[in-house]
Amino acid sequence: MSPAEGLGGEQVEGRRAVRELLVARRRAVRRLYVAEPGAPTDLVGMAVSAGVVVEKVTPERLRALARTDAPQGVVARAAPVRPLSVEELAGTGSPGGAPFVVVLDGVTDPRNLGAVMRSALGAGASGLVLGRHRSARLTPAAVKAAAGAAEYLPLALASGIPSALATLAAAGLWTVGLDASAPTPLWELAVADQPVAIVLGSEGRGLSPLVRRRCQVVVSIPQVGPIPSLNVSAAAAVACFEVARRRSAD
Amino acid sequence: MSPAEGLGGEQVEGRRAVRELLVARRRAVRRLYVAEPGAPTDLVGMAVSAGVVVEKVTPERLRALARTDAPQGVVARAAPVRPLSVEELAGTGSPGGAPFVVVLDGVTDPRNLGAVMRSALGAGASGLVLGRHRSARLTPAAVKAAAGAAEYLPLALASGIPSALATLAAAGLWTVGLDASAPTPLWELAVADQPVAIVLGSEGRGLSPLVRRRCQVVVSIPQVGPIPSLNVSAAAAVACFEVARRRSAD
Repeated sequence: MSPAEGLGGEQVEGRRAVRELLVARRRAVRRLYVAEPGAPTDLVGMAVSAGVVVEKVTPERLRALARTDAPQGVVARAAPVRPLSVEELAGTGSPGGAPFVVVLDGVTDPRNLGAVMRSALGAGASGLVLGRHRSARLTPAAVKAAAGAAEYLPLALASGIPSALATLAAAGLWTVGLDASAPTPLWELAVADQPVAIVLGSEGRGLSPLVRRRCQVVVSIPQVGPIPSLNVSAAAAVACFEVARRRSAD
Repeated sequence: MSPAEGLGGEQVEGRRAVRELLVARRRAVRRLYVAEPGAPTDLVGMAVSAGVVVEKVTPERLRALARTDAPQGVVARAAPVRPLSVEELAGTGSPGGAPFVVVLDGVTDPRNLGAVMRSALGAGASGLVLGRHRSARLTPAAVKAAAGAAEYLPLALASGIPSALATLAAAGLWTVGLDASAPTPLWELAVADQPVAIVLGSEGRGLSPLVRRRCQVVVSIPQVGPIPSLNVSAAAAVACFEVARRRSAD
């Protein structure tokens, strides 16, 4: 699989993300660059214990290697994150029980992708589906915003979101779209404790019309006030923890 | 009040934020810079109607004026956002009824501040309290992330968060801290439909020990999985919409 077709994730920046890369040991770590002076000794110790090559560089060199604003003195190079198939993801139980998948339809901002991954993992999601086209990948900004979630949350790359929804539905998951115009509030989602896939649209345009039609259920996050629009990562956090709340209540 | 003591907000970038600045008309707009070619004609028309000076500049010049990554071809200069006092904020009803204030204890990332403002406004909060020290202000990045919420959500600058909590409590608001180690889950917050102040800690360290002690109630957002940590803007979205959900259910 060429890099353009994969998930990415080869460059990991920021202390939280690097720590979880070293702790999780789900993929090979090729090298750890740390800024000297000021190298984070705990991360250096973990890397050395794991047999990872550690290279101390000047702060200027580290900033030149980094591709995010604030690498916090650490940049790691690792094997890319390997995607699962949508079928595999659909069959994966969540820590809270029944499968609980998040699907992103056209989310292109890597920081939003990372933030959604972090919230989804914390809420107990079993995995996340991205489209192969028009979707953010695991760039350094996404991996840093995920704050370690890139090491744990299973991801699938779908050739198209509508067909991914069909696959998820065939596996017994309810496909639930979030759309600001839907009359049913998220709080009344009847199927939250059953196998579900929560589908979120892009930052600017929301769900595409075809994806919205393919969702079996559509709900909204009720908003008040002059500007009814939520950032996709805020909407994802609210929706994921609503599923978590409902599952914890059972 | 010197700029260092104020909230800021004088530079507004990005189409959503500039649109709401022009729509809300809560503060004077001094000038609108738009990139030509590609100027957003709707915003130019709104500015001209409002008597705002519009200056067309080259895309290069616009990027030089901008202080965020993606100004989307528009930069506005406006009067700063004026803070309320904590007392005034405590007496302000929310669109959903009883006062509903969000308090940030040491949140220093402007994008997180803006994201929290956007979620708080959407959930029906009546306002937000920031500390005068160790807190992000309304930088261009914060205002852009707020996506217009800076024009509508009342803000107060407190000399200290503990004293702000005392003021809010004296005004009859329950002060509710979010802390990952609290045994009571957010979902069991008994006072969500009463006047409340939701208190969120900094990105790295959470609530300061003194602030945690001063909260009358402390709750957690229950998390599962290997890395129990939520971004502060995700935690704010979950907490604010839990209050909204509970209020809508009454």
